[in-house]
Amino acid sequence: MTRDAYVLGRGMIDFGERYEDSFDDLLEEAYLALLDDVNVGSDEIDAAWYGTLDVADEGMSGAAVAHATGLFETPITQVVNACATGSDAVRNAVLAVESGQVDCALVIGAEKMRDTAEGLISLAAEKRVWRGRGVTMPAFFGMRATRHMEEYGTTREQIAEVSVKNHRHGSMYPHAHYKFECSVDDVLSSTTISEPLNLYDCCPVTDGAAAVLIGTEDLAREHAPELVRVAGTGLSSDSFVRGNDASLTHFPATRDASSRAYEASGYGPEDVDVAEVHDCFSITELVTYEDLGFCEVGDGGRFVAEGRADLDGEVAVNPSGGLLAKGHPIGATGVAQVAEIYEQLIGQAGDVQVDGVEVGLQHNIGVGRNATGSVSCVNVLERV
Amino acid sequence: MTRDAYVLGRGMIDFGERYEDSFDDLLEEAYLALLDDVNVGSDEIDAAWYGTLDVADEGMSGAAVAHATGLFETPITQVVNACATGSDAVRNAVLAVESGQVDCALVIGAEKMRDTAEGLISLAAEKRVWRGRGVTMPAFFGMRATRHMEEYGTTREQIAEVSVKNHRHGSMYPHAHYKFECSVDDVLSSTTISEPLNLYDCCPVTDGAAAVLIGTEDLAREHAPELVRVAGTGLSSDSFVRGNDASLTHFPATRDASSRAYEASGYGPEDVDVAEVHDCFSITELVTYEDLGFCEVGDGGRFVAEGRADLDGEVAVNPSGGLLAKGHPIGATGVAQVAEIYEQLIGQAGDVQVDGVEVGLQHNIGVGRNATGSVSCVNVLERV
Repeated sequence: MTRDAYVLGRGMIDFGERYEDSFDDLLEEAYLALLDDVNVGSDEIDAAWYGTLDVADEGMSGAAVAHATGLFETPITQVVNACATGSDAVRNAVLAVESGQVDCALVIGAEKMRDTAEGLISLAAEKRVWRGRGVTMPAFFGMRATRHMEEYGTTREQIAEVSVKNHRHGSMYPHAHYKFECSVDDVLSSTTISEPLNLYDCCPVTDGAAAVLIGTEDLAREHAPELVRVAGTGLSSDSFVRGNDASLTHFPATRDASSRAYEASGYGPEDVDVAEVHDCFSITELVTYEDLGFCEVGDGGRFVAEGRADLDGEVAVNPSGGLLAKGHPIGATGVAQVAEIYEQLIGQAGDVQVDGVEVGLQHNIGVGRNATGSVSCVNVLERV
Repeated sequence: MTRDAYVLGRGMIDFGERYEDSFDDLLEEAYLALLDDVNVGSDEIDAAWYGTLDVADEGMSGAAVAHATGLFETPITQVVNACATGSDAVRNAVLAVESGQVDCALVIGAEKMRDTAEGLISLAAEKRVWRGRGVTMPAFFGMRATRHMEEYGTTREQIAEVSVKNHRHGSMYPHAHYKFECSVDDVLSSTTISEPLNLYDCCPVTDGAAAVLIGTEDLAREHAPELVRVAGTGLSSDSFVRGNDASLTHFPATRDASSRAYEASGYGPEDVDVAEVHDCFSITELVTYEDLGFCEVGDGGRFVAEGRADLDGEVAVNPSGGLLAKGHPIGATGVAQVAEIYEQLIGQAGDVQVDGVEVGLQHNIGVGRNATGSVSCVNVLERV
């Protein structure tokens, strides 16, 4: 690495049902929230990376961002990488700042899921073979839950504890879609979606946008309240169709992406104080503890049930409420997670602030054509 | 810039009607052609950037490339930027190599247009308002042709000369979709598509894929027959809906993108020996001469009619036949153009080789939601 990239500021908006707002409205609101947070003029933004999966309706080029924000005559790249779209947009902006070509990079992501989720999610599950046989997203992850219970003795109650924790956090996070607490009994008695997963094991369908500004150390010293460095990034790709060697109880892409991010950053899982991870379903977060190295393989159930992922636990996981409570507007999700880790590191996370945080991690997985976890992106941030 | 990026090799495949090949087949064939050109093992490829617009059917994440090429456990980013998708994928790979994080980056693009063009092109023209009123791509560019004729006295015959030249080149380029020569009379007497543009003024609907390898100077010295440096890149965004100031006779995004690429490279338009530019329609190339600075504003018609864009002209434009003859599989187009400029610079362009080339330029424009030329990407390459 030739020079480092820092977070200069963030723009978060309320996630939820935003039927009354256009896609452009969401982009503009996140951009204005960012400019409200960090005193940078639009003429100081050298380039942008834009995450949205909704190419059909809103995307297809960076011009959507130029139109919504007024950033004409600006280099704007649209990144698409399934549910890791937002986090990979951050990674590409980081590479650009590290290259020396870009001093100040906007990263912005948005999705109007309420209007388009059926189409988007249907595309994510390959439509030609699998979906017709019932293998939708809840079915994919339901099989993972069943297998984890079989292999490691994980209990249904332990899996539910992920939802309980994240809804507790979400109830305190101002931008979360759902702000209610629930008990293990609530999760277990909610409607069955795909056995063993129930309604409260699944993230909602949510509209939203988010922005962060990535730039040089000089700009961070000028604009940010604390120096937050992107210490390491990792991206990886995988596929289930390659053979019989894949496991249903871990995500090789997460393991590879986090290894890359840990190695680049010089940190390991034991150094991470706070993490925003991909909990599209409760089981996903539980498996992710193991894949990121927060606990031993097979120990994810106990890890959450014993409170080790709580705000005052070994590593505070999803203080924002995660995808389960905050929502999962795909192109915005990873960008929002980076914004939230930044808020934690500068001590501005309000009611969900974790004490004494120095190192934070952000993580997504995404589906490929016919497999969960085909892609994963991990970014490690540190307060310098 | 902290370190430079070089082209290590290219993989070109035949563009055309490839109904019998799947999207994966095209990706694999381009990748194998690349490995055949440059003696690099797949384990030496650190990361990849992947261009395709067809998120609905084939894309949505880099895992598509992992699946087709076997590059599992590799960071693969999908870039989407309208018709500049391929060239912006190259630009992002260049930034990554310049960052010092990536030594060897695959760039690969593909599109199955014959199967999906109706949907893709329909998406490109905003479906909600404009398309319903007949403002499709040929209509957009037809208006530009009419306006250029009105403002500058450009003749219909001069516009046709672009198609004549590019089909002459395409007839000699091995991978071109269409390999026939045509006369000005042929162009003028072909079916009217959108006045004043006729069938031979329009690029065909074409399947294809292309790959290039971007890497460090050390790797270029080891693997490439000549040192070809990416001297400068430029990307820009624009929109027509911002007001009444936009011209129908030039593309502000091309002007801005080329200014950026020229400034970064230290070269100007007078230094460019060979160029692969965006000729989705004949008028597009004619306007692009002016926007890139190859001739004065309003002089594009004379520039082509006087042979100044011929293989032995002031700057050889589209020796490959351009989009008009070679075809325009969107995600592959920009990657193929970089591959072709590389072939020119290493002296391996066969029948369309231009003499004494040292500096080459590659250019795309793309549409936004409802405007042509909303995005442009320019890459300048030099033989060191």
